[in-house]
Amino acid sequence: MTTDLFAALREGLPAHVLVTDADIAASYARDMAGLCEAGTPALVVLAETTEHVRHVMRVATRLRVPVVPQGARTGLSGGANAVDGCIVLSLVRMNRILSVDPVDRIAVVEPGVVNADLSKATAEHGLVYPPDPSSWETCTIGGNIGTGAGGLCCVKYGVTAEYVLGLEVVLADGEVLRTGRRTPKGVAGYDLTRLFVGAEGTLGVVTQATLALRPTPPPALVTVAQFASTTAAGVAVARIMAAGHTPSLMELMDGTTVRAVNAMSNMGLPDETAALLLVGLDTPEPAAELAAIEAICTEAGAFEAFTAEDAEDSAMFMQARRLALPALERLGTSLIDDVAVPRSRLGELLDGVAAIAERFETRIGVCAHAGDGNTHPIVVFDATDPAAVERAHAAFDAIMRLGLDLGGTITGEHGVGLLKREWLATELGPVGVRAHLSVKSAFDPLGILNPGKVI
Amino acid sequence: MTTDLFAALREGLPAHVLVTDADIAASYARDMAGLCEAGTPALVVLAETTEHVRHVMRVATRLRVPVVPQGARTGLSGGANAVDGCIVLSLVRMNRILSVDPVDRIAVVEPGVVNADLSKATAEHGLVYPPDPSSWETCTIGGNIGTGAGGLCCVKYGVTAEYVLGLEVVLADGEVLRTGRRTPKGVAGYDLTRLFVGAEGTLGVVTQATLALRPTPPPALVTVAQFASTTAAGVAVARIMAAGHTPSLMELMDGTTVRAVNAMSNMGLPDETAALLLVGLDTPEPAAELAAIEAICTEAGAFEAFTAEDAEDSAMFMQARRLALPALERLGTSLIDDVAVPRSRLGELLDGVAAIAERFETRIGVCAHAGDGNTHPIVVFDATDPAAVERAHAAFDAIMRLGLDLGGTITGEHGVGLLKREWLATELGPVGVRAHLSVKSAFDPLGILNPGKVI
Repeated sequence: MTTDLFAALREGLPAHVLVTDADIAASYARDMAGLCEAGTPALVVLAETTEHVRHVMRVATRLRVPVVPQGARTGLSGGANAVDGCIVLSLVRMNRILSVDPVDRIAVVEPGVVNADLSKATAEHGLVYPPDPSSWETCTIGGNIGTGAGGLCCVKYGVTAEYVLGLEVVLADGEVLRTGRRTPKGVAGYDLTRLFVGAEGTLGVVTQATLALRPTPPPALVTVAQFASTTAAGVAVARIMAAGHTPSLMELMDGTTVRAVNAMSNMGLPDETAALLLVGLDTPEPAAELAAIEAICTEAGAFEAFTAEDAEDSAMFMQARRLALPALERLGTSLIDDVAVPRSRLGELLDGVAAIAERFETRIGVCAHAGDGNTHPIVVFDATDPAAVERAHAAFDAIMRLGLDLGGTITGEHGVGLLKREWLATELGPVGVRAHLSVKSAFDPLGILNPGKVI
Repeated sequence: MTTDLFAALREGLPAHVLVTDADIAASYARDMAGLCEAGTPALVVLAETTEHVRHVMRVATRLRVPVVPQGARTGLSGGANAVDGCIVLSLVRMNRILSVDPVDRIAVVEPGVVNADLSKATAEHGLVYPPDPSSWETCTIGGNIGTGAGGLCCVKYGVTAEYVLGLEVVLADGEVLRTGRRTPKGVAGYDLTRLFVGAEGTLGVVTQATLALRPTPPPALVTVAQFASTTAAGVAVARIMAAGHTPSLMELMDGTTVRAVNAMSNMGLPDETAALLLVGLDTPEPAAELAAIEAICTEAGAFEAFTAEDAEDSAMFMQARRLALPALERLGTSLIDDVAVPRSRLGELLDGVAAIAERFETRIGVCAHAGDGNTHPIVVFDATDPAAVERAHAAFDAIMRLGLDLGGTITGEHGVGLLKREWLATELGPVGVRAHLSVKSAFDPLGILNPGKVI
């Protein structure tokens, strides 16, 4: 079977794009999600052109072999994990930036372009591609599209879906579908573009994307506020938004996270805080508005609030925020949750997570894109202790239940992947599941595209 | 058959929501698209609740009767036109604003809410629902969602799709699907929300929407520039965007349109101009930036450029722009095109339309959301002269061909409806058409939802 598969792939692919060595192929088995199952790929194709991808899909259709598309494998939900006997279809070598147009404010890119490389290329034109997941220095645009990635600046600038104008997609049978447009507006037919954003490669393989860009804003100036309780921080977030401010970032770290960052980096953040809130503005003259935000924080109960002296100072605080995940990961094995709630319910979510940590006797650090209500409770545990593993999973599940009960979603920006498939069914309900299955079946009748993911 | 249909509908609907009088029912036969065919409805249902809509769809499925959902029928592509023997399902009575939340910045509304009424309700909270089609004083949110409506402010604030977070949709079989979320972020499953935006009621009937709101910006201050050629105006648009400005509106009227507006309103716009460009900024202190924009216009060849004295003055110029369509419609029967091109190609499109007007000896006035590259060439002709009608249609088609050749789309914001169905197939190509048909068939296997529209 694998011999047949190899021979069929070789009919249309050069040898150097095929990885058949079992050990090397196995190194492509998983993304960065903790505790997710991963199968053993039959082989890996490092596609270099759309034609390569087409050939892979034609062979996969003919031989009924599953295909798992992959970018940089920085995902956190197992969406890129191999299934047994699959072709891993890596798009990282399709990494050309085909064009950047400063009048139309669009870039046309291949899926393997690294998010940070696109930023560098657009910066020359005074433009920015806003979505900035924490992994932006290594993750690919194709992966960002697959997961519908978010980031820190989404509170002002929106998510990946809002920046993908058009796609070239290789369908399950190897045909090439072109969706969308190169224009800001366009309503010619169904919005298939957005259907592929966040579909985690289960409906087709993205081989080219037309992305919207924006003028680069000034660097953000950041106000830092420390609270003795997460509830008070939640109140501050609600009041800042109700007052009509539009921060370009609004990030929160709870006490567990702050102490983990300190332990890792000696950043000298205040160890005694229960919640650290970072609020940034990237307007031309942010001082007066940041002073108003400082005052709101103080009224909401912050025991300290101050504004960074300049953009460099601000960037240092943001660096602390970016270290939150690696800092918590040093403390044990981690399960990273990604629950988003309406921002008016943020305080309730933070309180609820603290109660869950206590109930399941497990450490949970929370960092959050607070302005979006998008929280990342990180369950840290000792993977060698079966009871601790069980409690960690129970806590992880309880957090999703809490998110749904507060009117939120089980995943704000990391995707469903393998990790949250059962919870997706709970969030969607039976009619939603049925609608998803009909869409899946319309695009992938044989079920060969990233099977077992999403739905 | 109609007796059976009436009886079946009466099983679940009160008499007062059913319109069976043939003359009154016939008055629901069409939207505002010129020269589009329209059938004769069997009857009209003025639904007041989601349950009413569910009953209609269950009956329609059982009896295989087509259903044509309608809002205010201000559409311009025949998307709401009746087909023979159909149930017209009007949503205008479902017009409650269910909630406006200033912290979460969302509104939950029924589909019959008029766009302007939503604006009034959100203004009390200092918030705005940005999409502002020209018909905003009468069109409904449901219609805006169905067509994926645009408007003047989209150049800065984006289109309807970017403001629809979640939907309640009654499916073809009467089941209720809930899509999306109440949070800024969310990637739980496929983006079915956006699939229904712009689907013109061919995939399901929207009965509730969760919409994103933004803080109300200051009123725009507007710079007015007059050009002796449309080409020069196109150059100015490109240079303004390349210079990194972010206007909140950038509208263009060609000479034909300006003269029509003058004839209707005595506004005293300059009769001799070939293109009038309006560029608005809604930032707190726009003066310096507008001066820079004035300078760009002058360098690009404007023979006059000035900035309105205040917001009231600016609003007057915008009123002139809003009169463009009615002013041109007074001159004869009109066919309104809606071609969007990359804004770098705007000058070429304007030149091309002028050449088409000459070639087909027909009057064409162009108004455009220039910042989006979204133009409305309005073909005005004498409908009593068969040769003129033929030339008008030929010109209309030639404009779409031109738009596609320039990398654009046949419809930026009005939708496909009946009017552009054949052109949609040209824009999508065979693989795109096939993908559309599978999606349609996944949601509407019996083909009863607004048949003959879109695809």
